[in-house]
Amino acid sequence: MVKVGIAGYGVIGQRLADGVALQEDMELVGVADVAPTLAIRALKEKGMPYKLYNAGSGNEKQFEDLEIPFSGNFEELVQQVDIMLDATSAGVGAKNKELYKKYNKKAIFQGGEKDSVADVFFHGYANYEAGIGKQFLKLTSCNTTGLIRAVDCLDRAVGVEKVALTIVRRVADPGDYHRGLTNALQVDKAPSHQALDLMTIMPHIEATGILIHTPVTHGHIITVMATPKKELTKEELVNHFSQHPRIRVVRIEDGFLGNASLFRYARDLGNPRGDMYEIALFEETIVHSGKDIMFAINIPQESITIPETIDGIRAALEMQTDRLEAVGKTNDYLGMAKWQKK
Amino acid sequence: MVKVGIAGYGVIGQRLADGVALQEDMELVGVADVAPTLAIRALKEKGMPYKLYNAGSGNEKQFEDLEIPFSGNFEELVQQVDIMLDATSAGVGAKNKELYKKYNKKAIFQGGEKDSVADVFFHGYANYEAGIGKQFLKLTSCNTTGLIRAVDCLDRAVGVEKVALTIVRRVADPGDYHRGLTNALQVDKAPSHQALDLMTIMPHIEATGILIHTPVTHGHIITVMATPKKELTKEELVNHFSQHPRIRVVRIEDGFLGNASLFRYARDLGNPRGDMYEIALFEETIVHSGKDIMFAINIPQESITIPETIDGIRAALEMQTDRLEAVGKTNDYLGMAKWQKK
Amino acid sequence: MVKVGIAGYGVIGQRLADGVALQEDMELVGVADVAPTLAIRALKEKGMPYKLYNAGSGNEKQFEDLEIPFSGNFEELVQQVDIMLDATSAGVGAKNKELYKKYNKKAIFQGGEKDSVADVFFHGYANYEAGIGKQFLKLTSCNTTGLIRAVDCLDRAVGVEKVALTIVRRVADPGDYHRGLTNALQVDKAPSHQALDLMTIMPHIEATGILIHTPVTHGHIITVMATPKKELTKEELVNHFSQHPRIRVVRIEDGFLGNASLFRYARDLGNPRGDMYEIALFEETIVHSGKDIMFAINIPQESITIPETIDGIRAALEMQTDRLEAVGKTNDYLGMAKWQKK
Amino acid sequence: MVKVGIAGYGVIGQRLADGVALQEDMELVGVADVAPTLAIRALKEKGMPYKLYNAGSGNEKQFEDLEIPFSGNFEELVQQVDIMLDATSAGVGAKNKELYKKYNKKAIFQGGEKDSVADVFFHGYANYEAGIGKQFLKLTSCNTTGLIRAVDCLDRAVGVEKVALTIVRRVADPGDYHRGLTNALQVDKAPSHQALDLMTIMPHIEATGILIHTPVTHGHIITVMATPKKELTKEELVNHFSQHPRIRVVRIEDGFLGNASLFRYARDLGNPRGDMYEIALFEETIVHSGKDIMFAINIPQESITIPETIDGIRAALEMQTDRLEAVGKTNDYLGMAKWQKK
Repeated sequence: MVKVGIAGYGVIGQRLADGVALQEDMELVGVADVAPTLAIRALKEKGMPYKLYNAGSGNEKQFEDLEIPFSGNFEELVQQVDIMLDATSAGVGAKNKELYKKYNKKAIFQGGEKDSVADVFFHGYANYEAGIGKQFLKLTSCNTTGLIRAVDCLDRAVGVEKVALTIVRRVADPGDYHRGLTNALQVDKAPSHQALDLMTIMPHIEATGILIHTPVTHGHIITVMATPKKELTKEELVNHFSQHPRIRVVRIEDGFLGNASLFRYARDLGNPRGDMYEIALFEETIVHSGKDIMFAINIPQESITIPETIDGIRAALEMQTDRLEAVGKTNDYLGMAKWQKK
Repeated sequence: MVKVGIAGYGVIGQRLADGVALQEDMELVGVADVAPTLAIRALKEKGMPYKLYNAGSGNEKQFEDLEIPFSGNFEELVQQVDIMLDATSAGVGAKNKELYKKYNKKAIFQGGEKDSVADVFFHGYANYEAGIGKQFLKLTSCNTTGLIRAVDCLDRAVGVEKVALTIVRRVADPGDYHRGLTNALQVDKAPSHQALDLMTIMPHIEATGILIHTPVTHGHIITVMATPKKELTKEELVNHFSQHPRIRVVRIEDGFLGNASLFRYARDLGNPRGDMYEIALFEETIVHSGKDIMFAINIPQESITIPETIDGIRAALEMQTDRLEAVGKTNDYLGMAKWQKK
Repeated sequence: MVKVGIAGYGVIGQRLADGVALQEDMELVGVADVAPTLAIRALKEKGMPYKLYNAGSGNEKQFEDLEIPFSGNFEELVQQVDIMLDATSAGVGAKNKELYKKYNKKAIFQGGEKDSVADVFFHGYANYEAGIGKQFLKLTSCNTTGLIRAVDCLDRAVGVEKVALTIVRRVADPGDYHRGLTNALQVDKAPSHQALDLMTIMPHIEATGILIHTPVTHGHIITVMATPKKELTKEELVNHFSQHPRIRVVRIEDGFLGNASLFRYARDLGNPRGDMYEIALFEETIVHSGKDIMFAINIPQESITIPETIDGIRAALEMQTDRLEAVGKTNDYLGMAKWQKK
Repeated sequence: MVKVGIAGYGVIGQRLADGVALQEDMELVGVADVAPTLAIRALKEKGMPYKLYNAGSGNEKQFEDLEIPFSGNFEELVQQVDIMLDATSAGVGAKNKELYKKYNKKAIFQGGEKDSVADVFFHGYANYEAGIGKQFLKLTSCNTTGLIRAVDCLDRAVGVEKVALTIVRRVADPGDYHRGLTNALQVDKAPSHQALDLMTIMPHIEATGILIHTPVTHGHIITVMATPKKELTKEELVNHFSQHPRIRVVRIEDGFLGNASLFRYARDLGNPRGDMYEIALFEETIVHSGKDIMFAINIPQESITIPETIDGIRAALEMQTDRLEAVGKTNDYLGMAKWQKK
C-alpha cells in the first residue's frame, strides 16, 4: 500500500481524494487545506471520512469554532506519505515543492503550475514511461488531458501527423462566484496552450489551435481536426475510440446533445458529484475533410485529470512499469471499465 | 410495507424513486416510462436497481435493441401497487388517473397537473391532515413547496397575516435543451401562481407576488416579505427556522453566496445527483420593514418536492395520522435529520 | 451657455457627453481619458465630434500612433469649464476633486464615489433644491436613480411611509469581460445600499431591500413594495406613473416581457447605442397586498443617470431654481418628452 | 430609382428597410407586417419614417386602437414595387412568392426559406454574376454570408482547395424570449449546413464543419481552417483581409476580445441599433497548420446579410452588371467604406 497525501481540498483536490480512496493498492493518509471552506464544511458534515491536516497557520480557532478536527499540520502530512498530490492554487505548489524536497518525497502537480516545477510533463496514456521513477510530475491541464486521450488513441492506431483544434471552453466551474462571463464569447490569442502542451507530450505531432471562452459551467467541447498517416473510415474511427476505456462514444440521436446532457447523465448514473471520468465523443460529428478527419469531444473539466493523476502515482512510485497494466489498474479501481463491459 | 409505483422516470420521477427506495416502510415496486430516455439508459448502465415497466406501446423493439429489460406494462404496475406517484408530463397524469380509478388505487400528482385532478392540494408540513385517507393528492409545485415550509414555520410560531413574494426563478433544469432563456430577465403577470397556491393551502394568509425568470439552472431564490402577528427579532427568527428539519439556515459569510454555492455544496456532500432536500435561508438577508420581516430563501427545484410527496404517501395510505410523526419518518429515512444533530 | 467637461470616457462618460451635447444651453468643452480605449477609438472613427483631453501621462505616443489628436491635458480642460462631470473609476474622482478645488470649479460625481466626496447626494426629481448652488454633487447610482423616480412620483402624489425592495440586478454591462457571473444567482447581505441611499435622499421614508445578482447584461428589474399614506387603486397608480416624463408604463401583453424587450425596443427606436433614458414600469405587475402596493420596474443601467446628472448641472450652476422648470429643460433637450405627447 | 418593398418588419426586415433607405438609387416604397409588434410600435413612436402596409387580415382594429396608420394592404405594396425583399418567417416567403409571380415582380428571400424557392442562391461578392437578371434570389444565411466573405477573399487572392469550420453560434437574438439556451453547449450533427451552403455557392471548394450552439446573443464566432493553393504568410493574409471593404481586421491587443466587444464598439460608434455590417477577423488568431491556415471571425448576425441583400437588388434588377461596381455602390451608400479610408 503506497501512502498518498493531498494538498488543497478544492475542486480537484476533493476528487483526487475520492479517486485515491478507491484504489485498493493505495492508502489516503489525509488531505490538507488552509481554511474551513465549503468543501471542508461538507467533509465535516459527512463525518470526516478523510483525515484533515492544517496547511495554514493562525487559523486554529476558525476550525475549533466549527468543531472541525485536524490531525496535524501540513508538514506532518508530508512526512507520512510516499507521494503528495498537489492541487493547490497556481504558484503555491512551487512553494510546497521545497517541503517535498526537504523530506525527499515525490509529488504530482496539477496543470496550473509552471512546467519547470516538475521533471516531466505527464499523461497516463500518452507518455507513461516518461514518468516512471521520477520525483516530480506535472499533469496536463483538463483540456489537454482529455484531448490527448483521443489523439493518442488515433496515433497508436494509425499515426497522426498534425492536429488543429478549436477549444470551446467553459469559463467557470459550477459554484464559482469569483470568475464568470456574461453573454459574451472571448477569443484568445493563438495558438492555444493546449496545442503547445500536446506537442510537449507528443513531439512528433504538429499542433495548433484557437480557444474561445463561453459562458457555461459544465464541460469544454473541442473540435479536433486531425491528419492521420493512413486514411480511416468513420466506422474504423468509431471502433478505435469505442475500445478506449476513457472515451465514451455517444450519439446526438440518443439525446446526448452537448455538455449539459453529459452532466445530467452522470448525475442520473448516481456518480458522486455528478462527475464523469471519461471524455465523450459525439459520433455524428465525425466528418472527413479530404483525408483529414474532424470530430467533437466533451471534456468534463472537474474530474477529467483524476485518472491520469492516479496513473502518475503508479509511474512515479514504480508500482507498475507497464503502461497498460498501470492504466488498467486505475480504470478498474475507479469503476471505469464497467460500462464498457455491458 | 406499502407498495409504491412511479409513473414517469424524468427529473422528478427518478428522485421520487430514490426517495421511496430509502423509506424502510415502503417498497418501490417499479418505475414506468415510455421510451429509452437518457434516464432509462442510466438506469440500465447502473444495472437496473429498479424494475422498469413499459408505459408506451409499439416501442418494444427500441428497448430490446438496447437490451433494456422491462417487467411488464404500465397497467401491470398499477395493479401491483397501493399508490402511484405520477410524475409524468403535465396533462398525462389526468389521463393516467382513469387507470388508477379502474383499479381503485391511490395516486399523488405533481404540481404540473391541474388542481381539479386531485381531491386535495397537499403540503406535508402545512396541511398533512387534509390528505389523510384521500384517494388523489396533488403536490404543490417546487417553489410553493419550499416557500410554504418557511411560511408555515413562521405561522405556527407566531401567526402570519400576509406575505408578498418576489420569485427569482431558474428557467430550466441542468441538461434541458428544450427550453431556455439567454441574457434576459422575464417578468410574469402578477400575482404569481405560487401566491395563489399558498392561499389555497393556507387560506388564512393573504398572499401576492411577482415572478421573474432568470437564465440559470440551479435553484430559485425567493424573497419573502411577511407580516407576522407578533413582532419577532432576527434572533428569534433564526431560531425558529433553524429548528425546522427541512430548512438550512446558511450564511453568506461562510461562502453560501447563492444558489450555485448550494448546488456545489450538495455535490461536495456526496448527495446523489448533487441534490438537496432542504431549502436554504440566507441569514444575513433577514431585515425588518416596520413590523414586517423580509428574507431570502433558496429552492433546489429538482428535489424539493420529494419529502412532501413521501409525506403524501403516509397521509393517503394512513400510515401515520400524526403530522409530526409522519414527516419525522420521512426525514429520518431520507437522512435529513442528520445534519441538524451536529 | 455653461461650459461642461467630462472626466472618464467610459460607459457613463460617453453617454454624459452625448446628453450634454444635446442641451442647447450647455457647451461640451471636451472629454478626458487616460488611454486609447475602444470608446476613444470609436470617437476617432466617428471623426472626433468631441474634443479629447489627455488625462494620462507618458501615453502620448500611444495616441500618436493611432493618429488620435488631443486638445490638451486634463488640467487644461478643467480650467476651461464651469463644471466637470466626473465619470472616472471609483476612487479617481476623489483624487480629481483636488484639481477641481484648485481651480474653484464645480463637479458632479457618479455613484461609485463615496458620499463624502460631495456636499450633497443628489437626485433631479427628488431633491433638486438641495443641489442649488452647491460646489460638489454626487449622483445616486443607477438603481437608486431609477427607483427614486417611481417612489418620488408616488410620494408626491399621496405620501409614502415605507418601501421594501427586491433588486434583481444585471451583473455586467454589454461588452464587459472583466467581470461576470455564469449560471448563478448571488445574494448580497441586506439591507442593500440602494435602500440606504433612498433614505439619504428621502429621509422621511423607511426603506429596506435585498439584492440578487443575475447573469444578464441589459437592465435591472426591481420589485417595489410600498406603503402609501392613502389607498390607491391600480388605475390611479397607472395614471400617476404615466404622467411622469421619465417613466414609461409598458404592458407585458404588448410584448414588453422583460429587460431584453426594452433593450430591443430602444434599439428599434434608433436611440443612439440602443439606450433608453426612462425606467419602465410593467403595468400587469401592479398588485395590492393589503393597503400596500407592489410593482416591478426596469432600470436601463447604462443611461439612466444621464438626465439626473444634467439636472445636477442646472442645480449646481443655478441655471434654474425651480425643480420642474429644470427637469423640464433636461427632458426637452434629451427628447424624452416626445413619446409622451403622442 | 428602383422601387423596393419589404415583407416582414422583424429583426432582418427593419434593417433591410434602413439599408435600402440609405441607397441613393433606390426608393423604399414601404414595409409590410401582420400585427402591431414592438418593431411596428417603435416605427410609430419614431413618427412613421416608412410607410406601413398591412399584410394581415382582420387586424385593422388592432392598428386603429394604437393609431398606427397603414398605407394599404400587402398586395397593394407588391404592385407598386420593382422588387420585394422577403424577410418573413420561414415558410411564409414561399407562400408570398405566388403573389410576386402574379404581378411578375422580382424578390429576394432570406436564408430561412428553402433553396428551391429561388432561381439562384446568391452572395454579393462570391457569385454576383449568377444573380444578374434573375427573378428570384435567395440570400445565404447570416453565418454563411459572413464566412463566404472571408473565404472568397482568400480564394480570389490565391485559390482555396478546402475549408473546415467550427461554428460557435449565438442561440438567440437580443430580445428573443421564444428561444434560448441556458448554461449549455449544444452540438449539431455534422456537416453543418453552412459548409454545404458554401459548396453550393463555391462548388470548387470542399467544405465541412461542426456547429456548436452557445448561450449568447451577440454574434457568432467561426474558426476557419483553410487549405490555400499557395502558401501565404500571416502578413500577406492580414493584407488581403484588410483590403476587403466588408472585413474589419481587429486586434485582441486593442481590446477586441470577442463578439461582445464588437457589439459595444458598434454601439459606441453610434451605429443605428448598435449594428455592424462588417465581419471582424481577429488578427492574433491567424496561425498555420502545415500549409493550412486557421483564423477566427465574428459574424454580427442581425445585420450581416443587409449589404449582400442590397447587392442582390442590383443584380436582379441589372442596375450594375459589374460585380465590383455593384458592391462598391452598396458599400458607399451604407457608409462602410469610410472607416477603411482612415
